[in-house]
Parts: sequence; structure tokens; C-alpha cells
Amino acid sequence: MATIKDIANKLGISVSTVSKGLNGAKDISASLRQEVLETAVEMGYTGRKTKRQSQKRLCIFIENMDYESTGTFGYDIVLGFRQAAYKEQFEVVIQPVSHEFQVSENYDTYMLGNGFSGAFLLGFSLEDPWMEQIKSTAFSTVLLDNFIEKNPNVGYIGTDSEEGIAIAIEHLTKLGHEKIAFLDGSRGSMVSDLRMIAYLDSMSSHRLPVDPNLAVYGYFVADAAHYHVPTFLDLGATAILCGNDLIASGVIEECKRSGYKVPEDISVIGFDDLPLAQHLDPPLTTVKQDRIEIGKCGFYILRAMNEHISLSKNLLRPSLSVRSSTAIAKPRLAKRHSLDKDSVISANPELYAQFQQHRQIR
Amino acid sequence: MATIKDIANKLGISVSTVSKGLNGAKDISASLRQEVLETAVEMGYTGRKTKRQSQKRLCIFIENMDYESTGTFGYDIVLGFRQAAYKEQFEVVIQPVSHEFQVSENYDTYMLGNGFSGAFLLGFSLEDPWMEQIKSTAFSTVLLDNFIEKNPNVGYIGTDSEEGIAIAIEHLTKLGHEKIAFLDGSRGSMVSDLRMIAYLDSMSSHRLPVDPNLAVYGYFVADAAHYHVPTFLDLGATAILCGNDLIASGVIEECKRSGYKVPEDISVIGFDDLPLAQHLDPPLTTVKQDRIEIGKCGFYILRAMNEHISLSKNLLRPSLSVRSSTAIAKPRLAKRHSLDKDSVISANPELYAQFQQHRQIR
Repeated sequence: MATIKDIANKLGISVSTVSKGLNGAKDISASLRQEVLETAVEMGYTGRKTKRQSQKRLCIFIENMDYESTGTFGYDIVLGFRQAAYKEQFEVVIQPVSHEFQVSENYDTYMLGNGFSGAFLLGFSLEDPWMEQIKSTAFSTVLLDNFIEKNPNVGYIGTDSEEGIAIAIEHLTKLGHEKIAFLDGSRGSMVSDLRMIAYLDSMSSHRLPVDPNLAVYGYFVADAAHYHVPTFLDLGATAILCGNDLIASGVIEECKRSGYKVPEDISVIGFDDLPLAQHLDPPLTTVKQDRIEIGKCGFYILRAMNEHISLSKNLLRPSLSVRSSTAIAKPRLAKRHSLDKDSVISANPELYAQFQQHRQIR
Repeated sequence: MATIKDIANKLGISVSTVSKGLNGAKDISASLRQEVLETAVEMGYTGRKTKRQSQKRLCIFIENMDYESTGTFGYDIVLGFRQAAYKEQFEVVIQPVSHEFQVSENYDTYMLGNGFSGAFLLGFSLEDPWMEQIKSTAFSTVLLDNFIEKNPNVGYIGTDSEEGIAIAIEHLTKLGHEKIAFLDGSRGSMVSDLRMIAYLDSMSSHRLPVDPNLAVYGYFVADAAHYHVPTFLDLGATAILCGNDLIASGVIEECKRSGYKVPEDISVIGFDDLPLAQHLDPPLTTVKQDRIEIGKCGFYILRAMNEHISLSKNLLRPSLSVRSSTAIAKPRLAKRHSLDKDSVISANPELYAQFQQHRQIR
């Protein structure tokens, strides 16, 4: 790894000037400081070893996720992380970041310039500008619900989507449901893709056929229901599994608007168990992600990485919060059948495989 | 959770007798003690909460894995676990177990009777008698390379086989290899299945066809080479990827015996990076599992579970130890072609799917 002396030699300046640049001293210019930081990062400098180990300063970067009030998805994650970090005397800085911020700041330069020894990233997607830089970051970094290959400095924490969907489908099949629709979140989100695969696997393991018109991607918003629920109802679905609780809230509303009662006519099940789930009418049965645990584990993984243990994938167990939005199936005749009857995915492995082109993501 | 009083009521004996039974006091009979322990376990009793939290006593159960001398697979795992545990003043007991031992002792009863608050299991297979009991154990349990569904008290630690195989195949393709054989470990072992899937995925992502006669299961022993290497050589493979280092050692010997030089004529690559890998002739290029890290993480996961954080799947990053058993590909004409040319698995998704019936295991 590069030393302060290497950086000084490369820039043709003194060691003490480099040191001032790294430490943010006031008596060198902002542009020279930036040059020092960028050169240091380019050379793979991440701080003096002794200093780094004693440096108990972490950052939670948040992009596109609510976290400020208690009902939001991010609130408990941030809380759990802080609880675990404070117990071991770490300082935690919360830094919301926009797309523009990511374009204007280099990730490693920002980490070095602000004296962070590690970071936890919430709400980012793989398309975010920083993700390209994080593929080769030299700083310990944990991502919620995103996986980066091959970089030992980057870890992934999430809830086991496969098991979450499996317990939801199991709950529904025990209630006699067979025609189970799935309104997933946004296509291209890693968790959406994992949940779609898990839905296909679970249906298959219960020997239930899948109609592609009942297994669709929407968006992680309540409005998604408006476009898909009428089709699900027409095709005779008796239960609708949703990619998250917000989608489920929209699905319940849309069912009611169409004159169907939840759960008497149709069962609805969510994912996440946000505080809103218990306040819906009826209260929502949903797959619980323990967000306090996610936050704590984010910290534990960062701590392990600082001991040079490279935990790459870490999944927490989901559980099922059973409330009143699911009940015994009431089979109905479909008003119409799937347009293309051949497109129904049964135990037929070839068709099944075609639907699973995105299986590479696990 | 059941209390000591509940156990006493159920057995119609006094609380103090139950307490003596649980604590192994000398003045009650062995058969009464056994009855107390079994009833306690049946009722889901895992120790008084306050006592359990202060109880820093863990067990490493070892079945069918060498660990006593430095060159073995288990040695560093046990060492890493102890290092991490001792740092936090935990006591660690090493307990080798046979098939008979598992049949004669109930897992939870043994844990309770010996005052363990958690256990790390090495070398077990899903067919072992204890596995059925561990599906519903009330004690924090971490399994190396085995996954149990839905029980929040059981976690899985391993090295990411998918990434390990991917970096091995990438290394070989960069050297120009296209006809890459894979001699995997035993069928039905979870890691063997994961590695077979990873091999198929990696070949597919490099757009290389897979001949099923070049992708076979053997056993985790050197002798496996004897049965498969002649076929690989006849079919024109220029590289052989192996399910572990022992298999690779057999493959190198078998290649030499058949008059082929490693790596000039054929490249060989292993998995694990056991100490023996660097002493082979030629020294073996292999995918490294950091066994000290595995051991340490086994402890970290147990510790998290004792704080009621249910980490279910945890994978460490592998790395590639490049030595002299791999070199630039030297294409050879196959002496014969695969008997059934149609059986070659290309980018054709249907055939690919049929080969991946075991894909459920991830």
C-alpha cells in the first residue's frame, strides 16, 4: 500500500504538505487538498494503518429511502446500526446523498477526506453513479440489498427473500389457495428479481402451475395495483402476494374498489412489515424483515471487515406476521382465461427455465 | 418458554430436584437426571435467561473431518473459532462425534446437560442423525457448509462457491482454455451441488458449451481421478477444475501416469488451498477458502444469535492462489467425441435447465 512519502514524491511536494492535505489543515488551499486526496486514492492509500484501526468513524449514506420518521423503512435500520456502533464507541455520521452528489464526489476521496473507516449504504441501486467506484473501493463498505462481485472490501446484507416468499406461499397453500398472483416490485431491483425467482420456485415446490399473467413486475408504490389487480381478479386469483407493504396497501384498496372483500373474497399478503401494515384495513399479513437486526448486522459486518474478514453475503431470517388480510381460499370461476393457454408454466422444466433467464442473480 | 416450575409440575417432583437434574448434582440418580433433561428439552427449556446470557460455554462438534494436525482442513477453522472466542472470554469444548454418538444422544438434551449456550458443527452432512433434531433445536447452532430452513436458531457459514468457481473459470479462460472439465466432489453434498451449478453458470457466462461427460461428480478423495481423467483426456479437455485439493492431487498423478505434463499439456486447478497444495508437483493453483476466517465468523454468528439476531446464510469471499499447475492452453484433438453429441449443453436454455434439476439448492 502507498505511504504518505509515495504521495509526496508523486506530487513533488513535501510529506508535511501531504499530511496537511489528508488531515484537512486550514493552511493549504482547497485545490491542493483535493489534489492530495485524489492522488492518495489513485495510489490506493486508505489512511495510516495504526490510525485506521483506531479510527472509529463510520458513515451511513442514504439515497432514495425515507428514514427520518419512525414509520419509514430506513428509520429502524439506522437506529439498529447506531445502537450497535455506539455500544463500541463508534461515531456514526448520517449522510443523505443525491445523484448529483455522487457525480460530483469520488467515493474513496470522500471517505478519505472525511476520515471514515467504513460505510453502510442504504437505498442505492446498481445504476447509481457510486456503484461503479464501489466495485474497486479500498474502504470497507456494506450494501443493503445489493451485491458486488469479487471486491473483498464490499459486503451485502439483506433478508432472505427466498425463505420470505416460501413462508408466504406456504401460509397461503395451507389456507387452500392455488391460484396465487404475485405483484412484485420494480424489475431490475435485485430483491425484486430474487423474490420473483423465489415465487416461481415455491409455486413449483407445491406443484402449482404459474400463469405468467399472474406473475408480474410493478413498482414499489401503491399505484402499481391499479394496473394489475383487475387482470388478477378476472383470471380467478384467490390470493395476491405483493413485493412490499406499500404495494399491498394499493392492492387492498383496488380489490375493495372492484367490489371484492379482503380476506373473504381474496387474500392479500405483503413484504417488510412496516408499521403501516398493522394499521391497514384489514391489518396486513406480511413477511417481516427485522430492520433493527439489519442495522446491527450492517455494523457487525463492517467491524469484521476492519479485522480483514471478508463477509460477502449475509442474509437474515424473515418471519411471517399473520394478521387479518389472509383467510381460507374461496375459489371463484375465472371471468376469462389467460389469453395464451400454452404460456402457463407448469412443472415443465423448459418453459420454467425460459421464465428464469435472470436466475444468475442469487 | 417453560420454567423450572413447569418441568417440576409435569414430572410431579420438586423444583429443587429439577434444578439438581439440570445442574448435574451428584445426589440424584442418572436415570432421573436424564428424565429431567429430556422433559426440559421437550418443553423447550434452554436454561434460565439470566444464566444463559452469562453462560460463555460453546462446543465445536466435529464429525468426519480431520482437525488435529496443522495440514488438515479443520485445524485452522477450530483455531480461528477459538481465537475469536477466547478474546471474549468464552470457553470452547471440542467434541468429536460419531454416527453412534448422535443416535445415542439427543442434541438439545446434550447441549442442556453440558451447559452449552451454542455450538459450531463441522463436517456433518444433511443425512447425519442430528440434522433432523437440529431442524427444530432451541439452541444457537452454526453449521459449516450446510443450510437448514426456517429455524431462526440455526445459521450457515461457508465460502461463496459461486464466486470461487467463477474466478477459477475466469483464470482458465484468460489462459485460452475452452474445453474445461470439472471433477466435482460427492453428489448430494451441498457444496458439491453449489459448485456444479456455479460451473454451469460460469461456462455459460463465458459462452462455452458444456459436455456432460466433462462435468461429473466423484468423491472428495484423490482416487476419484482414476475413473474420470482418462475420459477427460480422450475428449480433449485442456484443463481440469477439481472439487477440492485432494481430488486435484489425484488428477495431477493420473495425468502424469497417462503421459501428460501439467501444466504444459493440461492445466489443473483445485479448491480449498490446503497446506498440501503448495507442496504438490507442480504446486497447485487453487481457490482459497480462508479457514481462520470461517472459524472466526462461526463464533461471530453464534454471538449475534445470542443477541437474538438470526443470521441464516453467511458467505465469505474466496480468492485465487495462483501457482504453477495452470498455463496457457495447448489445444489437442480429441481422440474421440462425446458418444452422444446432442447431449452437449450449449446456450440452449432447455437442455441447460434439465441439467440443473438441483438448482433449488442455493
